Amino acid sequence: MHHCHGCGAANEKGLRLKSFWDGDEAIAQWRAEPHHCGGTQENLNGGIIASLIDCHSLNLAIANAYRSAGRPIGSAPRIGYVTANLNVSYLKPTPLQEVIALRARIRKLEGRKAWVDCTLSAAGVVRATGEVLGVRVEWE
Amino acid sequence: MHHCHGCGAANEKGLRLKSFWDGDEAIAQWRAEPHHCGGTQENLNGGIIASLIDCHSLNLAIANAYRSAGRPIGSAPRIGYVTANLNVSYLKPTPLQEVIALRARIRKLEGRKAWVDCTLSAAGVVRATGEVLGVRVEWE
Repeated sequence: MHHCHGCGAANEKGLRLKSFWDGDEAIAQWRAEPHHCGGTQENLNGGIIASLIDCHSLNLAIANAYRSAGRPIGSAPRIGYVTANLNVSYLKPTPLQEVIALRARIRKLEGRKAWVDCTLSAAGVVRATGEVLGVRVEWE
Repeated sequence: MHHCHGCGAANEKGLRLKSFWDGDEAIAQWRAEPHHCGGTQENLNGGIIASLIDCHSLNLAIANAYRSAGRPIGSAPRIGYVTANLNVSYLKPTPLQEVIALRARIRKLEGRKAWVDCTLSAAGVVRATGEVLGVRVEWE
């Protein structure tokens, strides 16, 4: 996970998204670089938005699994989630120069599956919403 | 569009995806770099997969709009498509070192909207499928 293009701290060319607890939800703030633009140079790329929503949502699912087990994040056996489905609705353009704010909430847990809802905002306005279905995996 | 993180030829830090006609469908081939990995260093990141499907699908919608108008791609007034919804299902892990093959097909056109279906394959196996809803925009 340390090398993940979206949220790996060790990936120098990645997005390096960091997620934090806020009650039972997860929040994150992120700043784009100029090369993260989309169809115009003023707006954030839709694929980057999808990446941020994907990683932030699964970060919450993973952190929640550790918390439910009463274990520190990253302790063995490692818990991960892989994305089965990612559905992003783009509501408004996302200005590249604003701070990007993410908020994720677990909608449902069932067996190994987690359904997470996520919003992506900039300048106080929700720009995109996402639904992520993650499937839990464990490894030593 | 030249600077788009997914498919802009002028974006040196972008993915630089190039799409081509294959009959009425669009095809593309793309190679990942090591920093495009996901939860493991062997597999392609899900956000990158979403980016590739998004850009490739809208590239087809744009090219199709120009072709239907009998005009060269990029001629004025410029035609673009912006993503309204992106839905990606991840079927199998996508090995990072394989050539990534994309194929997109227009499912429906209605007014300014285009629904595009896309598959992403590696080593001859479909790894992810996407549905993209794009909305047409024009500018001088």
